[in-house]
Amino acid sequence: MKRSDRLVALTNYFLENPRTHTSLPFFTTKFDAAKSSISEDLGIVDRVLREEGIGSLETLPGAAGGVKYIPHFSRKKGENFIQELCHTLEDSSRILPGGYLYMSDILGDPHMVKQIGRVLASAFSDLEIDVVVTVATKGIPLAYAVASVLSVPVVIVRRDPKVTEGSSVSINYVSGSSRKIQTMVLPKRSLQEGANVCIIDDFMKAGGTINGMKSLLEEFNANVKAIGVLAEADDEEDERVVEDYTSLVKITNVDIKQRNIEVNPGNITE
Amino acid sequence: MKRSDRLVALTNYFLENPRTHTSLPFFTTKFDAAKSSISEDLGIVDRVLREEGIGSLETLPGAAGGVKYIPHFSRKKGENFIQELCHTLEDSSRILPGGYLYMSDILGDPHMVKQIGRVLASAFSDLEIDVVVTVATKGIPLAYAVASVLSVPVVIVRRDPKVTEGSSVSINYVSGSSRKIQTMVLPKRSLQEGANVCIIDDFMKAGGTINGMKSLLEEFNANVKAIGVLAEADDEEDERVVEDYTSLVKITNVDIKQRNIEVNPGNITE
Repeated sequence: MKRSDRLVALTNYFLENPRTHTSLPFFTTKFDAAKSSISEDLGIVDRVLREEGIGSLETLPGAAGGVKYIPHFSRKKGENFIQELCHTLEDSSRILPGGYLYMSDILGDPHMVKQIGRVLASAFSDLEIDVVVTVATKGIPLAYAVASVLSVPVVIVRRDPKVTEGSSVSINYVSGSSRKIQTMVLPKRSLQEGANVCIIDDFMKAGGTINGMKSLLEEFNANVKAIGVLAEADDEEDERVVEDYTSLVKITNVDIKQRNIEVNPGNITE
Repeated sequence: MKRSDRLVALTNYFLENPRTHTSLPFFTTKFDAAKSSISEDLGIVDRVLREEGIGSLETLPGAAGGVKYIPHFSRKKGENFIQELCHTLEDSSRILPGGYLYMSDILGDPHMVKQIGRVLASAFSDLEIDVVVTVATKGIPLAYAVASVLSVPVVIVRRDPKVTEGSSVSINYVSGSSRKIQTMVLPKRSLQEGANVCIIDDFMKAGGTINGMKSLLEEFNANVKAIGVLAEADDEEDERVVEDYTSLVKITNVDIKQRNIEVNPGNITE
């Protein structure tokens, strides 16, 4: 195979297999090329990926050596994306009764979801996450977008147990905004003891739901390494019960009467 | 930019922007290269993508001309993947009470989900789908995987209305397996009248849930162009109420006593 062809195939391979360790002999066999040629190819791919601001190749030397593609969303790309997102959300027709914001169009767009996942995953890149946990329903696409970049599985906490998931662990918690007692369930099989977990959700007000997830994860002795949300909003009635989290955008001053919203970059840009 | 660098950047661009029409001047400006050089690059990218069995570039000639990446999972790749999937599912420890099958690990693996989405999307590639519709919860990741390849949005039907989605349309339907009356809800804003829809779900027995979705979509005058499921299973008690669907695998003979399952390729391979 010629270099030009190899570069296309290699780029595709790395984008398809993020954070996967691949030995050089795999490539020399696949492309029927010398180790030195492959090394040069990898140098080119690495340089262009860095220039495009989407990641880099990590080379591991020695006998067990090889190469790994680490996706990364450059700070500049992330900030531009978040600015655009704020602008999109600051649309008065999004205001719903109760001061909620319509975001289903954004969460329904696979391209947007992928970008949000990349920005969040970049922030958690060094935390050695084993699994991404979310709660049904709206956080699910974001959780997969983050997990896909981190190359780890997703586990979905449910509000009700399902027969197709076997035995499960459940807890009760108090929802921050409605002050109701609610239930959360996680199938026993779905999470290993002591896993490093990243919690992902679309929206956080007081943080009751995320706090509920934390309590449920304690039952599995999981280590909550990170909490990431698309949007945070101030809750006037309740104090926030979650301290350490990362948000992409922060919704403030939802004025239902004046039909006015203010959306600013979240703490991820700090 | 040199050809080698351009090929890496171009490959990344197309994989990131499936089914998106891009004019040649966009590339000549981005890479500061002659039209003839870009055309040669596109030829190389097209050839390698085809050889890898993952898609091809569609060139549109003329003044409004340009190029579009059409993802495609080759028949051979699809069949190999489905065979492996059957093998993975034919594991007796997956049998749950009631003859259900534990599949959450597969549905929780972003890489697997992406592959399943590719195989299904390839089958629906020519149907001019406008939107992928699924029902909460388990079909959601599959729906995004299909939508991402088709480059269309996802709309999620819920069992209960949510305050953060505004006014909605709801219907009642009879579930095939439990024979209970259930409710389905779709926010008014989420779907345009007369859209071409592809329904995606993880599992189909009698097909009551999918039939419910079809009734709900009628309220939006949507055209159901395709129905895709990961797994279908025979329901001994009820006749199937959905006729025209595409399945990746077919689960038969779940013998709870003998702890035995048989999983075969679904009708997508026919």
